[in-house]
Amino acid sequence: MQALDALLKDFDELSEIGKTPEGGVHREAASIDDGRARDWLKQRLLAEGLDVRVDGVGNMFAIVELVGPEAPAVMAGSHLDSQPHGGRYDGPAGVLTALHAALALRDDCRSGRLTAQRNICLVNWTNEEGSRFAPSLMGSAVFAGLLPAEEALQSVDRTGTTLREALSTIGYLGSEAPPTNLTGLIELHIEQGTALERAKCPVAVVEGAWGAAKYVIEITGRASHTGPTPMGDRRDALIPAAALILEIRALSDRTNGELLSSVGRVDVSPNSTNVVADKVRLFAELRDHNAQRLQAACEQLEAAIADLAADGITTRWEKPTDRAASTFAPALKHVITEEARKLGIEPLRLMTVAGHDALNINRILPAAMIFVPCRDGVTHNPLEYTAPEDLLAGARVLKAVLGRLVSEA
Amino acid sequence: MQALDALLKDFDELSEIGKTPEGGVHREAASIDDGRARDWLKQRLLAEGLDVRVDGVGNMFAIVELVGPEAPAVMAGSHLDSQPHGGRYDGPAGVLTALHAALALRDDCRSGRLTAQRNICLVNWTNEEGSRFAPSLMGSAVFAGLLPAEEALQSVDRTGTTLREALSTIGYLGSEAPPTNLTGLIELHIEQGTALERAKCPVAVVEGAWGAAKYVIEITGRASHTGPTPMGDRRDALIPAAALILEIRALSDRTNGELLSSVGRVDVSPNSTNVVADKVRLFAELRDHNAQRLQAACEQLEAAIADLAADGITTRWEKPTDRAASTFAPALKHVITEEARKLGIEPLRLMTVAGHDALNINRILPAAMIFVPCRDGVTHNPLEYTAPEDLLAGARVLKAVLGRLVSEA
Repeated sequence: MQALDALLKDFDELSEIGKTPEGGVHREAASIDDGRARDWLKQRLLAEGLDVRVDGVGNMFAIVELVGPEAPAVMAGSHLDSQPHGGRYDGPAGVLTALHAALALRDDCRSGRLTAQRNICLVNWTNEEGSRFAPSLMGSAVFAGLLPAEEALQSVDRTGTTLREALSTIGYLGSEAPPTNLTGLIELHIEQGTALERAKCPVAVVEGAWGAAKYVIEITGRASHTGPTPMGDRRDALIPAAALILEIRALSDRTNGELLSSVGRVDVSPNSTNVVADKVRLFAELRDHNAQRLQAACEQLEAAIADLAADGITTRWEKPTDRAASTFAPALKHVITEEARKLGIEPLRLMTVAGHDALNINRILPAAMIFVPCRDGVTHNPLEYTAPEDLLAGARVLKAVLGRLVSEA
Repeated sequence: MQALDALLKDFDELSEIGKTPEGGVHREAASIDDGRARDWLKQRLLAEGLDVRVDGVGNMFAIVELVGPEAPAVMAGSHLDSQPHGGRYDGPAGVLTALHAALALRDDCRSGRLTAQRNICLVNWTNEEGSRFAPSLMGSAVFAGLLPAEEALQSVDRTGTTLREALSTIGYLGSEAPPTNLTGLIELHIEQGTALERAKCPVAVVEGAWGAAKYVIEITGRASHTGPTPMGDRRDALIPAAALILEIRALSDRTNGELLSSVGRVDVSPNSTNVVADKVRLFAELRDHNAQRLQAACEQLEAAIADLAADGITTRWEKPTDRAASTFAPALKHVITEEARKLGIEPLRLMTVAGHDALNINRILPAAMIFVPCRDGVTHNPLEYTAPEDLLAGARVLKAVLGRLVSEA
């Protein structure tokens, strides 16, 4: 019999790929190390006798047949790509728990302990993180029809490489059609917060997601020498950019930190010590579970950007992500709650602030998420950590949920 | 007789080497094209019967003998290297006017119109610009004992090539001792500002140089997810960095813009949209002609950096450049003023904000500079331009000044 805790061995193996000195992984989407992680998963699936299908944007699918090949399937999985110098759990926890839950259920079917009506479709979504190619949640967005595949493939990284080229280089520019006849999706993920840890609870049902608005703001001034150019003649794009970074923080402060705001990326041009910046691009995010408050903050931000325009300083902005708050499928959340209770766990009910592939899939299929704890809420960081017993508790709940879903007619 | 305006023909020839489509030159220090420019100069000097001496960091010297070989010499020259896609005049104007002034004075001596007590030492300094190998003003710094030669030779460009390797490749890693028994230096350079143009004056005496303090400031926070991490738990290095950028600007504003301040380069880590920045490096400059005010601003900046430290936020800084405001040799400035007036030119009196090799030499020998106009103040740019008549006016003043200096006992 397939022991669920074999997933810990796989987890350690996978964590070696793109390992960083600090103990995390550096596996940006479609990088060489993302390719090696994909190869590892592919070999793992083939060794279990499973076929691997790669679609036109590199999403990887494998049907675990529990019943005839024509039966509908329940999806489960997450992503193997990471942030630059990111953590080991964000993504892989969902892929490996799904793999091992499905293999255990296949054992149960083979031994007659379970009679399935559906199969399981394992998935590894391309470019969940979005750090190299924008936007994030890319593979699931294409799958859900929210983003044209061609647009995704033309996305360019900082060095001018397209996603198409990068996927082709690592051998994951597929051409197969994604599976159809799917009935829903369950994604297990680390919480990326501290609620579970504080409650000493290993599992949460994710109620739904906060709204998120992401902005790319461009401020243009004029390049000149930082030496002889009189201050009055300078049109330094960095000065209004710095003021805007503080104003974006103030949008949150004015809600006592309930609205979340950030600028994570700043691109300065030409970024040379003795040249006044002629262009600065800020990548800003606002997140809130309160739709009205989020909308008000967006309006304040847009007004603040407009106010920066001055003699020789121009501004413009785009809003590539404008995701409304949403709710996961009630029936699936109910199943997760019941199955967790059967295992002696009273699950927390949490909202997700971060985006997840399951949110895209929830637009076209019933979807739900299971959260497991992560220490101190630290994530997108090499120190990201989930205790093995918590990962296994999540895997047991996931297995029970998938077992129930595949048993249903 | 050697006509001074023959320098225009030489200038056009030299400008062909490393020429860019936009009309400038691309001759970074110790590049192949810097080597070709050096070869051109060497051939030009040899054709005039002059010996060329190359020291251990590639500085080129040639003694123009006006009197016996044991006599002291007055130095004159500048640099042939350029910024990437830079202009034709920044540097070569000083080398070629010195060459032609010296040749004309040799003619005057040979024909008996001039009786010299001193020789002239022509010089081409290695790596004035500092764009490829840091720091700038490198060759003159080694000559003046301000920088160990070994440290200069170990400087590495973006591709990992050392200055030693680069000089060796182009054949200018010399081993000769630089000349001694030198009594002073005169450097002619383009103004890189608009004062002469506005005054319709072809020549300025440079009074001295502004002080410059350059800082690299590192602010460290903690990486986390811009989504789920509660605002209170974030240690975002970008927030204090933005505040510091505004404070650095305020240092200038509080002097009504008389002190110049800038942040030209900002390196954010990991610089990913949905990761709270764990590290920001700011490259800042403060410049002032008033030494006390510059010192006060440095102290305010250092205090402001220290004030940023907070729970989870640490700061540190380095000050790789700390150049005090300085004054060129009064006696030499007096000679330049008198000789210009004899030629019917009332020279402007200007300060230089940018660094020049003459500032390093001024630390060990009496030095002074002559500025000639450049159109619209445009420099470090292919469109850099000095009218031929202005270059010739500068050359005439330089010849008169050198003629007077070599006549003195």
